Amino acid sequence: MTTQIEYAKKKKITPQMRTVAKSEFFPPGKIMRQVAEGKIVIPANLNHKNLKPIGIGKTLRTKINANIGNSSVQSCITEELDKLKIALKYGADTVMDLSTGENIREIRNAIIKNSTAPVGTVPIYEAVCKVEKIEDLNIELFIDVITEQAKQGVDYMTIHAGLLKNHIPAAMKRLMKIVSRGGAILAQWMTSHKKENFLYENFDKILDVCLKFDVTLSLGDGLRPGCLADASDKAQFAELKTLGELVKKCRKAGVQAMVEGPGHIPLDQIQMNMEIEEKLCDGAPFYILGPVVSDCAPGYDHITSAIGGTLGAFYGASMLCYVTPKEHLGLPDAEDVRNGVIAYKIAAHAADIALGRKGARKRDDDISKARSNFDWEKQFSLALDPERAREFREKSLAITSSKTAEKGKDDKFCAMCGPKFCSIKLSSEIRPEKSRKRS
Amino acid sequence: MTTQIEYAKKKKITPQMRTVAKSEFFPPGKIMRQVAEGKIVIPANLNHKNLKPIGIGKTLRTKINANIGNSSVQSCITEELDKLKIALKYGADTVMDLSTGENIREIRNAIIKNSTAPVGTVPIYEAVCKVEKIEDLNIELFIDVITEQAKQGVDYMTIHAGLLKNHIPAAMKRLMKIVSRGGAILAQWMTSHKKENFLYENFDKILDVCLKFDVTLSLGDGLRPGCLADASDKAQFAELKTLGELVKKCRKAGVQAMVEGPGHIPLDQIQMNMEIEEKLCDGAPFYILGPVVSDCAPGYDHITSAIGGTLGAFYGASMLCYVTPKEHLGLPDAEDVRNGVIAYKIAAHAADIALGRKGARKRDDDISKARSNFDWEKQFSLALDPERAREFREKSLAITSSKTAEKGKDDKFCAMCGPKFCSIKLSSEIRPEKSRKRS
Repeated sequence: MTTQIEYAKKKKITPQMRTVAKSEFFPPGKIMRQVAEGKIVIPANLNHKNLKPIGIGKTLRTKINANIGNSSVQSCITEELDKLKIALKYGADTVMDLSTGENIREIRNAIIKNSTAPVGTVPIYEAVCKVEKIEDLNIELFIDVITEQAKQGVDYMTIHAGLLKNHIPAAMKRLMKIVSRGGAILAQWMTSHKKENFLYENFDKILDVCLKFDVTLSLGDGLRPGCLADASDKAQFAELKTLGELVKKCRKAGVQAMVEGPGHIPLDQIQMNMEIEEKLCDGAPFYILGPVVSDCAPGYDHITSAIGGTLGAFYGASMLCYVTPKEHLGLPDAEDVRNGVIAYKIAAHAADIALGRKGARKRDDDISKARSNFDWEKQFSLALDPERAREFREKSLAITSSKTAEKGKDDKFCAMCGPKFCSIKLSSEIRPEKSRKRS
Repeated sequence: MTTQIEYAKKKKITPQMRTVAKSEFFPPGKIMRQVAEGKIVIPANLNHKNLKPIGIGKTLRTKINANIGNSSVQSCITEELDKLKIALKYGADTVMDLSTGENIREIRNAIIKNSTAPVGTVPIYEAVCKVEKIEDLNIELFIDVITEQAKQGVDYMTIHAGLLKNHIPAAMKRLMKIVSRGGAILAQWMTSHKKENFLYENFDKILDVCLKFDVTLSLGDGLRPGCLADASDKAQFAELKTLGELVKKCRKAGVQAMVEGPGHIPLDQIQMNMEIEEKLCDGAPFYILGPVVSDCAPGYDHITSAIGGTLGAFYGASMLCYVTPKEHLGLPDAEDVRNGVIAYKIAAHAADIALGRKGARKRDDDISKARSNFDWEKQFSLALDPERAREFREKSLAITSSKTAEKGKDDKFCAMCGPKFCSIKLSSEIRPEKSRKRS
């Protein structure tokens, strides 16, 4: 026995389940039962030695993932480790190494060694780098790639096994066709070979590798909509239905599985999308990308998608894959990673508060108390990004002090209202008489 | 007859109503009827000469407001005009001058003269600047202030007439007490004089001034919650009920009125808040501040609040007051104004798409077409912030080109995936065979 779900089915509580239980304020037995049912996954490769396990599931705190990794035209190993550090510092629960450029293997190794969070990959990217043309891809090569990655300690892998040959015509009618890189690669392979998706056909071989190292499968949505016009269409839901079938195969085989979701979805379709996944995939954790709720804000898609992500989590998504301000334009740098992570911490936390997750609201109440007490240091320490909050206050005070020399004398105000108009100061001085009914 | 609502009640369609009808794809008669009912307001002071009128109402495109103005410790007239320019450039539908520092009158005059958008103010700020102590405020002084502002051409004014003496004890029990500056000023006035709110007691005098210049009243929520812990409490809804009574008085007097709303509200309470306002205030346009959906993201409250604002607009709010990244920390500069406006354009637009507002989705579909055609110039021109989108792409391409000299040769990719992994390029090459049922 190697995987968390196998142990759970045998009613064994693992150390990983105990860690998750503790951090979620859950009894360990409850975690175990939901792992057994496949409603919670704990991505924890046997070979990822310094991992601090986390649980991903609908009943747990909403998790966020940060994508890092280079492209064929950009970035190197030190830059990626820098991004990793930033992602973990600001609270990413998992990281995905999406490298498609040089030194894929070395970058991944360094990321796993330096990450206490679960690390995910999309192995088809490395597979493609090993062949001359997409048509040359085959299952033997793919199994070699995932075996090597699993040995290195990758905790979860995105596999686009649910995109079938007969889904492609519907996708080709779309405004944006196929925007998932993995999806586009497989669709090209299938159409040139006139064959079924080799990941679907050989799914059992993939499961064998996962079983050996406890790699969690993240069933990829190769047909996620790339714009609002394509949202919630036939292609998307046909693939999702297949992903639901694959979830059952995973669970039966003793492999942990989650399901990936969109993408670009208008606000009013988010709840419906979460409910359909719950139904078609029997409550497997839903891991969504955004969704962005408008197509026309390039440069700000961390915001567009944090809006959708908040709703997604509120209506049942278990993990949100962040989007950075560079989405649709370029590869994120370390500052983009920071902005993406914070936007998604906000989304996940806002949903957790609204869902009444145990302990979620405490941080908000504590910072509000600090705010009403003008305890700036405590406010900074409780802020999702303490450095940014401090920087903004100090910048504002510097302007203020140069004009009025107020700084240092009295910090019971912020430079927004100034001391005379500080509502918090004013209202702290109010001593109301006893309440009376209006006559 | 001077006000839009008076004309509408007499079934006269004004040029302002026609302008609004045209921009909203509505028949003018429909605009007129909803103005008559008080469901749409068109803030348009007779003395604001260069105004391009807009309508604010539940059935119309969601509007956004940008607050500018100096504080007693920061900023000057040229800086405020710079912020105005930025706010209008990126699409603010109205601007509020919240100046509380020096040269209030001159700054306001310059803003009105340079703004094609309706300009709002919170006159109690200027009134307070004219007295030594808050206790010295009185209705005569206040009427002088609003008369002068109305003559200058202020299109709408926030008046905190709904905060009554008997609401104060409930507010004092809160974690954050009173966070509205106007609210805190009036509460202090009431408790020190042991008298009812002089704006409530003399509401008819205020209406007389509004009537003369067609100033729209924005009934201020002096008791809006300042943290999640205080959301949707007795104090908040007691004041809202009074605001509903004042809406009726305004409509009867022929004065246009909208209602201001929170503030800090958890995600799951937003719909309920919108519905209560609709009911208590008989469908008067709801003009909300955010709401922020978590208290612990200082430095990023444009995001925290854009999430709440999107939901607010989706559930019935007519206008969103922006929040900038500096909220809770300092006064926004021009770059903060830009970030705040864009975050709120996203919120308003995402809600309009979800509500099926006529024409709203076209921009998204057009940019998606441009994206799938690699038409970068068209993408930039359709982006909410063209300069930011271009800057990000060019920065990414510069890194790319220094490494691979790809730039200029072929722009059918972005630096995010690079040319080899471009899903859009890949999927444009797919020629699927005819669809077949899976056997």
